[in-house]
Parts: sequence; structure tokens; C-alpha cells
Amino acid sequence: MEESLWIKNASLECGYTEANGIVTGTKTERFHVLLMDGRVEKIVPASSDIPKGVSVWDAQGLLMLPSFREMHIHLDKTFYGGPWQAVLPAPNRFFRIEQEQELLPRQLPVARDRAEKLLELVQSHGATHVRTHCNIDPVIGLKNLEATLEALATYREKLSWEIVAFPQHGLLRSDSVSLVREAMKHGAGLVGGVDPATFDDEIEKSLDAMMDIAVEANADVDLHLHEPGHLGVYIMKKLAAMTKDAGWQGRVTVSHAYGLGEVPTAVVEEVAELFAEQQIAVMSAVPIDMPTIPIPLLNSKGVHVGLGNDNITDHWDPFGTGDMLQKANRLAERFRWIDERSLSRALGFVTGGVTPLDQAGNQVWPKVGDEANAVFVRAKCSAEAVARISPKEAVVFSGKMVWQK
Amino acid sequence: MEESLWIKNASLECGYTEANGIVTGTKTERFHVLLMDGRVEKIVPASSDIPKGVSVWDAQGLLMLPSFREMHIHLDKTFYGGPWQAVLPAPNRFFRIEQEQELLPRQLPVARDRAEKLLELVQSHGATHVRTHCNIDPVIGLKNLEATLEALATYREKLSWEIVAFPQHGLLRSDSVSLVREAMKHGAGLVGGVDPATFDDEIEKSLDAMMDIAVEANADVDLHLHEPGHLGVYIMKKLAAMTKDAGWQGRVTVSHAYGLGEVPTAVVEEVAELFAEQQIAVMSAVPIDMPTIPIPLLNSKGVHVGLGNDNITDHWDPFGTGDMLQKANRLAERFRWIDERSLSRALGFVTGGVTPLDQAGNQVWPKVGDEANAVFVRAKCSAEAVARISPKEAVVFSGKMVWQK
Repeated sequence: MEESLWIKNASLECGYTEANGIVTGTKTERFHVLLMDGRVEKIVPASSDIPKGVSVWDAQGLLMLPSFREMHIHLDKTFYGGPWQAVLPAPNRFFRIEQEQELLPRQLPVARDRAEKLLELVQSHGATHVRTHCNIDPVIGLKNLEATLEALATYREKLSWEIVAFPQHGLLRSDSVSLVREAMKHGAGLVGGVDPATFDDEIEKSLDAMMDIAVEANADVDLHLHEPGHLGVYIMKKLAAMTKDAGWQGRVTVSHAYGLGEVPTAVVEEVAELFAEQQIAVMSAVPIDMPTIPIPLLNSKGVHVGLGNDNITDHWDPFGTGDMLQKANRLAERFRWIDERSLSRALGFVTGGVTPLDQAGNQVWPKVGDEANAVFVRAKCSAEAVARISPKEAVVFSGKMVWQK
Repeated sequence: MEESLWIKNASLECGYTEANGIVTGTKTERFHVLLMDGRVEKIVPASSDIPKGVSVWDAQGLLMLPSFREMHIHLDKTFYGGPWQAVLPAPNRFFRIEQEQELLPRQLPVARDRAEKLLELVQSHGATHVRTHCNIDPVIGLKNLEATLEALATYREKLSWEIVAFPQHGLLRSDSVSLVREAMKHGAGLVGGVDPATFDDEIEKSLDAMMDIAVEANADVDLHLHEPGHLGVYIMKKLAAMTKDAGWQGRVTVSHAYGLGEVPTAVVEEVAELFAEQQIAVMSAVPIDMPTIPIPLLNSKGVHVGLGNDNITDHWDPFGTGDMLQKANRLAERFRWIDERSLSRALGFVTGGVTPLDQAGNQVWPKVGDEANAVFVRAKCSAEAVARISPKEAVVFSGKMVWQK
């Protein structure tokens, strides 16, 4: 069945305005955009007539932007939607593991409901894709995975998703290899991992085990890597080598990669080049309580960098807004991207690289044939949306209106 | 005339809950609070009857918190309320000065209107006090001061304020001593200054001139100090000595104090002790694009630290939310204050040190006789409000309802 929706009077970016060779603003014009079967079918000037008897939504000049991709979240263990709880002081990370051995089973009855509330939150902020890391550990088994799948099923017509099987208690340390294998057969799409030195105390064996599961399941990989400084770098290089050996180019993500925030630039460059070669992506939550990894440098070397909210009020961290535009804003503020073009380019970090204009200011989105995923914001242009964290008014996924303020 | 308002069903914090010696939560109970003639007159349990025929506002269980103090803002040169503009790339700070020599006169016709819009913004986020730095320079003269005074007059029953006469183009460099003197006679309450090395190229002479005006006008001082590292420290020590000589204890603020983010801890401690002795306050916008100054250390040494939004979308900076609770949130996130008590204590940095509970958890606010300035938030407790940047629903200033959602 053909499903179509005319978006009337959407503002689209058409180019930069320049003065003395400096980008000083962004030009927009109004268009009607026809969405059909999940794709952009037609884009016509707003002066054109729209056929009668079709489904129409009037954007009234709101700015149409590519919708956001939340690339690192933990849907399965949040306090969000429940009563307020702060984080308990913890001597080390293993305290949190002990804590969640008791906490997660207790939270299981509300896990699905809270995951749905988080999905509602991130969607209301413009996201139509989430990558969620789901605990796979000996205590909770696959139960959080089941709750996550149920919540995502509720949202199946509203967003796309990926589930990472995340052995939070250590792949080897908690003897979770076979559990993760099971998870890959029961709905998880990516193989996760965590700190092969700190958690597993056997770097090579841990990474090997993770890659083995990935190859066996023909699945991508997303490794939590909090290991500091040169230890982190050693592991990243090792992972790059394994990626090459396995032919897993373009299928591996390193989440956090904290080590890159603590080593000399020359070392970061070396890792960045390896990652670019092996098409290893990096995911950051743009932390401000430690040295932020040099995202502009990674980006300039051709490494794909995505952002995520990570924890949103859980037993690890009480913060997190659920707003990917706020993450782009923080990225811009952190690296002092304050001019029109820099702010505008920051948007690409939360859209999987899709931006209305390219670096030179050519209009590249939306084009006929593009996936019809969009967010409508009360802003003049991408730069304003990023700098001011402009209000979102509506979200379209796969050609359908899925959220309105 | 007696003016009174009964706040019905306000949640007030009564103490911490503890488990195994760790603060795990905050206890609240509902009260009716009578405000009269700008003060808290009576606090009774919510089970009590309220007399008939009096003015009543039902808080319906909203949490009552001390309202916020915005301690560093530039009301007089914002783009806020006007069309979006990004920041122009600038080779150095003097480019911005040249820029505003043309920009401020051009913006003068809308200066009052925009200042009022900013006041509306910060008040809607719970502030009832602002300290604004107003440009006093040879080009704009006292005209921005006049616009600022007009805007503040509009808000005179809604918030309290201080105006700092701010020689943005350099007190000596732009030959603004007599202009600042004039400003002190025409509504400015504090003497400002900026970077005596970078701008004025004569540290001692610049600080002397600033202090002379302050003593002459019997006014407090608030110096913008962006000078880096040990240069900044040298100037801070100099200022502490001058504060002592002038007997200006408790009357001097250093805004930004960036240098403290770039020197060894022992040096920060030395400055902190001097500042504590001379009761010199520090104001920070909690920047994340440079090393944040060690606010917890300053605080532990007894230095009063306040926060401010600083620029809110102007030709210096495109960011800024106007929300002091967001500043407390950033402070907490930046220094990883994630447990109940730490989050709860963070509130004091945006309220001039007033918190519902003291460090030990004793209820200390509100008390009969306190100024009746409060914000009502949709949160269980201060810790939640700070961590989640909870929505504000109403603001009371001097016993009167001045803003409601």
C-alpha cells in the first residue's frame, strides 16, 4: 500500500551567505515535500499547489532537519520514569557491578515501562534511531534483553534500533561468553564488550573472545572502552589489528575511547589513522568531568564520530537529558565552534553525518530518494538549532508523523 | 500596607535519609507558608487550616526552593529576542572590541527591549536577582547604562539587581576612567574592570584606577579577569593586597579568574587563602572549553563562589540558556557530584549560599523572617532539581508571585 504525506511549508537550508569570504549566515526557503513509502518523493517550491484529497501536514515554516541518531544509551537500567534516586558513592566500578546484581532483578518488573519512557523522551527530542547497550550478565541473564525487545516492539513504527549485547560484568570475568552468544540468537544485533584490562585482566583473550562471537554471528561490534591513557591506546591498536584480520572494516565501534583524551596528539593521530583505515567508528557522550577526547582531530582524520546520551539517571550517573541536540550543542561549546559554519557542521555528529548543507554550503539534504526521517525545529537554520538547542515541534520517521509537541 | 500571600501545600526539605552512614535521599513534608511584607511570616503543617478571605496560591506539592541569583550577565548587548546571528570568527579579543564599536550603537534602539526579554528568560528559570555588567566605553558612553536602567525599572517589582560599570574596551586603554566615574553617579552600583595586563598593559596602574573609583564612590568591585595562568594569579594577589589596603574586605569579586584553572594546586590554595582572608568572591560561568577553575577547592577554603550565565547569544558567544539551575547542574557534572548530598549542596552555588538543608542535613531554609524569594519546581528535592534540571512552575519575589508557567 502506498503511504504518502505532504509536508507543507517546510523551511529548507539552501546555502550559506558570505561576506568578505566568511560564512555569516544560512539561506533558507520554503518548500512542500512529499514523503511516500518511507522516502522523499518530491520537493517543490512552497508557491506550488498541493493536490486535493491527500494527507497534508503544515510545517508553517519550521526548519526541517535530518532526525537524530542516539548512538549510545542504556534503555534497560534507568531510574527514568520512576522515583528520583541519586547515585550512591562508590569506591570503584566493581561496587556498581555488585549493586546492579541486586538492583537489576528488582527493577525487572518496571524495565520495559521505563525503557518505553526513555524512548518517548529521546523521540520527543528528535531521535528516530537508538543504539542501546543491553546488560547480558550471569545474574540478569537475557531478561533485560527481553524487556528491551518488548519496549522496542512498542516503538517499531516510530524509530529504528540496534541492540548491543553488553557483558557489563566482564565478558571473561563474569564468564558471559555463552550468554552473549545466546543473546545474539535472541534479538541482539551487535556484540558488546567492556574494558578487557580492568574487567577481564586479559586483554588479548578478551578481545579475541568478543571478535569470535561477532564473526560467528556475522555481527558488528561496539566495545565500551574506559581504559585510561596509553592502556586504552594499546587496546585500540590491538582492536584495529583484529578488525583487519577478521575483515571487519566498517563494523566496529569504540564507545568512549577515554584514553584518547589523555595522550599526546601524535599518539591520537596514529590511532585516528588506524581507525580511519579500518573504518572503526568512535562514540562519545562528550563528557566534561574528564579530558574530552579530541573529536575534531578524529573527524579531520576521517574517523566517523557519533554521539550518545549514555546513562540517563541510573545507578551510574544522575544526569542526561535525552536530547541529542543538546549533545551537539555541548560538542560545539566544548570545542568552541561558535561561528555559523562550525555550528552548522556540528549537527552532523548527531545525524550519522547527514546535514542539509555540505562543508562548501551546497544543499545536499533532503534529496528525492532519501529516507524520510526528519525533525522540525523552531529555528532559522542548523547553526541556530545547535547553539540555542531550539525547541522541536514534530518528528517524522519513515515518512510518517510519529511525534508532535 | 500589609501585603500577604499564603503558599499552600509547599513541599519543604526536612532532612536527609541515611543508610549505613551514607546520605541516600532527602525527606520532605508539606507545609503552608505565609509570606508578608516581603518576608516569611509563618510556616505551618499542611494539615493546618488557612484563614478565610486571604490571598492563597496552592503549590500542590511543588518543591519550594530559594530563588536563584544570576551573578554575571550582560543584559546590554545580546542578540536574544532578535534574529539569529552566529559569532564571527575573530583573530583576537580586540577584533570583538572593534566589532562592538559599530554593533552597539546599531543595537541601541533595541537594547532595552532585548534586556527585558533576557530578564524574562532568567526569571522564567527561577532567578530573582541579576548582576549585570554594562558596557561603559567611549563609543557607547552611558547609553547602554540608560537602556539597562529602563529595562530593570520594568522589572523593579520582580527582581533585585546590581549594575557593574564595565569598561569593556579597557579602563586605561580606552581612557574610560571619567566615564566610569560618571556611570557611578548615574545608576551603576559596582565598579568593573577587565584584564589589566592584556587590555591596559599596566597592571598596577589599572587596578589602582579601578580601586580609586570604587573608594571614591563607596562601591563594590567586580573585575573581569581572563588573564591566563600565573599572570592571572599575579593580578589576583595584587588585587587582594589592594583590597586589604583599602579595607574593601567583602566588597570585591573576581569574575572568571581563568588563571586558577591553569596553575598547580598549591598556587590555587595560596590564592584561595588570600581571597578567604579578604572575603573576595569568585564568579564562574563554569566554562567547558578551557580548564574549569577548581571550584570545590575554592569553596572548601571558604571562598564564596557564585555562578552566572555570562553571554547569552551575543557577538562573543552563541550559547547560554539563561537557566541558573542548568549552571548548578553543569557544576555538579563537571566535578562529578553525583550522590544525594553533593547534588543537594550544588544548589547553594546559584542561591548565594542559601540551601534548604545544611551540610549535616538540618533544615535551615525557609525560616520565619527570611526574605520571601522562592522558586517552585517539579522535583522531590534539591538533588533531583540539580541533576535533572527540573521544570520551574512559579517564582516568588519579595513575597509576591512574579512568574507562573
